[in-house]
Amino acid sequence: MERENLQGQDIPQGTSEVEIVRVRDSERNNEKDLVVTETPLTVFLNNKEFVTLLCSPEKLDFLAVGFLRSEGLIQGSSDLRDLHVDHQKGIVYVRTADQSDLTEKLYGKRTITSGCGKGTIFFNVLDSLQSRPVESNLKIEAGRLLKLMSELQNDSILFKTTGGVHSAALADRDKILFSSEDIGRHNAVDKIAGECLLKNISLDDKILLSSGRLSSEIVIKGAKLRLPFIVSRSAPTSLGVELAEKLGVTLVGFARGRRLNIYSHADRII
Amino acid sequence: MERENLQGQDIPQGTSEVEIVRVRDSERNNEKDLVVTETPLTVFLNNKEFVTLLCSPEKLDFLAVGFLRSEGLIQGSSDLRDLHVDHQKGIVYVRTADQSDLTEKLYGKRTITSGCGKGTIFFNVLDSLQSRPVESNLKIEAGRLLKLMSELQNDSILFKTTGGVHSAALADRDKILFSSEDIGRHNAVDKIAGECLLKNISLDDKILLSSGRLSSEIVIKGAKLRLPFIVSRSAPTSLGVELAEKLGVTLVGFARGRRLNIYSHADRII
Repeated sequence: MERENLQGQDIPQGTSEVEIVRVRDSERNNEKDLVVTETPLTVFLNNKEFVTLLCSPEKLDFLAVGFLRSEGLIQGSSDLRDLHVDHQKGIVYVRTADQSDLTEKLYGKRTITSGCGKGTIFFNVLDSLQSRPVESNLKIEAGRLLKLMSELQNDSILFKTTGGVHSAALADRDKILFSSEDIGRHNAVDKIAGECLLKNISLDDKILLSSGRLSSEIVIKGAKLRLPFIVSRSAPTSLGVELAEKLGVTLVGFARGRRLNIYSHADRII
Repeated sequence: MERENLQGQDIPQGTSEVEIVRVRDSERNNEKDLVVTETPLTVFLNNKEFVTLLCSPEKLDFLAVGFLRSEGLIQGSSDLRDLHVDHQKGIVYVRTADQSDLTEKLYGKRTITSGCGKGTIFFNVLDSLQSRPVESNLKIEAGRLLKLMSELQNDSILFKTTGGVHSAALADRDKILFSSEDIGRHNAVDKIAGECLLKNISLDDKILLSSGRLSSEIVIKGAKLRLPFIVSRSAPTSLGVELAEKLGVTLVGFARGRRLNIYSHADRII
């Protein structure tokens, strides 16, 4: 998708040109500027309108599939029968092998993920994850993680252009396998989850890299994928740390330059 | 709520102490560190478990009320009959004047906010907002906005301690009236929305300040509150700009130091 702005220059993919008034001290100028593109993506599941995600308009197939995986509606590529993206309309059509009413399942699910107080539904979901914490033989040097994080940052073109996106990536101990960018840090991780599912990649020896904060929801997404490492340049939250400890995930924050903090399962970092 | 850590020092409110392994070059040290507290808050609406929000544990009453307001389930303080927070259990009990089944309304609503493709439900919500764009007589100097933003940043204690929160504030042309901090930028804005509702504050001459990105959802929240100004130190998205233009909101981004960018309705800034 190549486009040109009014001056005949290329507009980088994932950005949109807008007219702004730039104010600096007492100066005021009408200018053109680039902002990160946000677009609504509607997922149709088995011909039923299902959910609309607000996202960056790349890797929409991966996002739809990753979202359904994170929500627990599909587990593997064999659960998918058909996948079609209409970029023009911003719609992804997903058909699953199981044609029973998944909307019903989501509504049940909704009450679960956005569940209730301690000891009840929210914590039941965690309990079911805790009953089989993530296991992995992968051990890795801190220096390698820092090298991967610096690669992630160098790859992030959209961030450099607009300052408005998060990035995520899947890596093994040697290199980044693929990455994603999105206005939402949840979406960026879901795009990785979807790409892994469609490419049938095993994850128990892989590393999830993220630019964003490590909240409980990101840790839960990683644990559901059976990823042993979640690494970010940003801060974790208390619940993120607590869950990583319980779910068998090595959680690394503030991975910048030559330093990082390990919040759980530090024995995997050598 | 005063607490002490193992060294007998105060732990700032909104933070939790965790044990970490700090790695710097080849040094590796076991230390204690502060991370921002994340907690699940369950909202019971008319004695029915409704939703669990993951949030920072302050201003929980405002958050619950603001969330219900943003979701369109209540409009003003007269819609509320009773509000009770159980801090221990992390539960807010809300009773509304209208005792009909609001869960039903949310499920309808859910299909709406997370709606569908262009021309249909997602855009119907926008259409209903666009039919009465925000109107305001407030005009303000760019320098005043920058002063308010610098106050917001100075007030943000949690961010300085942990690097892991967003802040939001309500201001008039002279000063910040109140502010909020939360791990989620949507929550931070909802806390402001709830406080305004409970305090019966009129908003058509007020300014919403935010530390976070100006995506479509933040602009929609502001427009629903009838706020003429949304100002942030961060970047907007394309859909955020487009909606601000249509909904009558003056959108200001990158408000830092002595500069800012105006993305819509620039005539309100003098």
